[in-house]
Amino acid sequence: MANLVEEFNGYREKMNEKILGDDNKVIKRIFNLDTNAFKEGHLDVKTKELLGLVASAVLRCDDCIKYHLGKCHEVGLSKEQVVESLSIATLVGGTIVIPHLRRAYEYWDELEKQN
Amino acid sequence: MANLVEEFNGYREKMNEKILGDDNKVIKRIFNLDTNAFKEGHLDVKTKELLGLVASAVLRCDDCIKYHLGKCHEVGLSKEQVVESLSIATLVGGTIVIPHLRRAYEYWDELEKQN
Amino acid sequence: MANLVEEFNGYREKMNEKILGDDNKVIKRIFNLDTNAFKEGHLDVKTKELLGLVASAVLRCDDCIKYHLGKCHEVGLSKEQVVESLSIATLVGGTIVIPHLRRAYEYWDELEKQN
Amino acid sequence: MANLVEEFNGYREKMNEKILGDDNKVIKRIFNLDTNAFKEGHLDVKTKELLGLVASAVLRCDDCIKYHLGKCHEVGLSKEQVVESLSIATLVGGTIVIPHLRRAYEYWDELEKQN
Amino acid sequence: MANLVEEFNGYREKMNEKILGDDNKVIKRIFNLDTNAFKEGHLDVKTKELLGLVASAVLRCDDCIKYHLGKCHEVGLSKEQVVESLSIATLVGGTIVIPHLRRAYEYWDELEKQN
Amino acid sequence: MANLVEEFNGYREKMNEKILGDDNKVIKRIFNLDTNAFKEGHLDVKTKELLGLVASAVLRCDDCIKYHLGKCHEVGLSKEQVVESLSIATLVGGTIVIPHLRRAYEYWDELEKQN
Repeated sequence: MANLVEEFNGYREKMNEKILGDDNKVIKRIFNLDTNAFKEGHLDVKTKELLGLVASAVLRCDDCIKYHLGKCHEVGLSKEQVVESLSIATLVGGTIVIPHLRRAYEYWDELEKQN
Repeated sequence: MANLVEEFNGYREKMNEKILGDDNKVIKRIFNLDTNAFKEGHLDVKTKELLGLVASAVLRCDDCIKYHLGKCHEVGLSKEQVVESLSIATLVGGTIVIPHLRRAYEYWDELEKQN
Repeated sequence: MANLVEEFNGYREKMNEKILGDDNKVIKRIFNLDTNAFKEGHLDVKTKELLGLVASAVLRCDDCIKYHLGKCHEVGLSKEQVVESLSIATLVGGTIVIPHLRRAYEYWDELEKQN
Repeated sequence: MANLVEEFNGYREKMNEKILGDDNKVIKRIFNLDTNAFKEGHLDVKTKELLGLVASAVLRCDDCIKYHLGKCHEVGLSKEQVVESLSIATLVGGTIVIPHLRRAYEYWDELEKQN
Repeated sequence: MANLVEEFNGYREKMNEKILGDDNKVIKRIFNLDTNAFKEGHLDVKTKELLGLVASAVLRCDDCIKYHLGKCHEVGLSKEQVVESLSIATLVGGTIVIPHLRRAYEYWDELEKQN
Repeated sequence: MANLVEEFNGYREKMNEKILGDDNKVIKRIFNLDTNAFKEGHLDVKTKELLGLVASAVLRCDDCIKYHLGKCHEVGLSKEQVVESLSIATLVGGTIVIPHLRRAYEYWDELEKQN
């Protein structure tokens, strides 16, 4: 059975390629902005990834949560820091966030197994 | 093939255990509150489960809908009462709720088959 | 200074009249459905008003909350029952519901003063 | 493996039949309204389908997006017109719409293969 | 008393100036994209404004609705076309959209009085 | 004319007192959790306030934004850091966040004038 992390990244890359292969400038620029917005600035990369994670969690977007969890793991945030961010998301966004919290835990476990 | 109800409950329990095994107090207390909020008070348990169901439906959270459908079934609410609640959710939340209504019907059928 | 309740009802009626004076059948039927959905059926009127209130609260629509608070008051629900419903909405919908809870409390006070 | 389009339509039809076989008038009328609202009026059918698509995309409802993509394809809208509408949805709704954009691209491809 | 339209446009312009006077590139580019996305392309300007209006209405953003109503009026869309678009938004987004519909009617009236 | 900051804080305190004067345990505990969740833990207070701000912004809750802006100001975050966080919120949440961005800028200005 395909690993959760590889499955997510594989589909994401395949479809991003299709979307960016198309000629829609607005979409291309939004993709570009997405890369730029999370670069170090007045805030460091770690803080920004946590901001992206919490935004994704309260808006209840599993794919966005997975993406930012992957990035959080990559830039060296600890599980405790990630969980603390998600606890704020659950409080602000309500118990409706809990099913996404379950899947976030599962995905983080897979990320840790990858290493 | 695994039954929808068992699959949902199994995953839910497994992940809740992981989450609660962790040391995050805010999350633990939110889980606790969730149990307390639906206990009999000035409103009876049936009414509260319908409130939880409608909140879940308009916020379009399939897992939350499944959880409250399970509870509604357990406390003895009829299909007619559940459907009437979901009709209010569909009116207030719009046709965007309909895909969740389909899955709610499917899940309720499975709950009835369990007995 | 105009009373919160009168102000809300006055604007609501004035604009509903304009909207229904128009020839859009889809909108007219939605307004009609809204009246029908909250009539006694397999659930009584009180339960339905609480369902409408909780749906409005988690979707964070102040005007919808006011409308259902007015109805809750009219059909004889107690403040305790209304607050208990709102507590479920705040738990499910998160702390983001709290500003609407404040305004709901203020509006309920005005409703009680009316009598 | 079952085709995405057939799978979606099959499940949708099966469950709609169950829902409409039930005796809930509010839900039946909402289903009815849904058919009427997208008929030619002051706006043509193509424009209305794009409106339905964008509404579905910003509300991030995959099933609703699939349904309207199917309709857009059926009434002869081009991929460029559909993508341009989705670019507006992504701008207005934010990068949180992007995972749905990926699935929309995949589904549109399947629709084109059907012919 | 200040006119609704002037009040909205005045505040919008004043604050946009402040925001764009700041040095945040991500925000500046999003503002830029917003201008570009609604220009004529594979879809004409009228259709695009209706798409923006419906997206704003189902996401229940009064200011965004006002902005697109202003644009709809400017590019020569009729009240019937605007209302038909809003009827789709109300159906898809639910009765929770109705309070915004009321304010949209009021704002459109003001726009017509301006001429 | 009353200052935006005082007006917001005054109303908030007055209504919180009323809500907490009531006997609803679920609501009381949610208020309590809200205080605890933003205390220093694995993440420092500044990071947590930015997480709260971004969650509030993407969920488009003006009062919650104001509250966290007040806190951000209090704990010594710079305008640049706040704006950078809001730029991520605007990208993730879409242009629908822009009207809230305008009001956030206005409120921050008032906070700076207070000193």
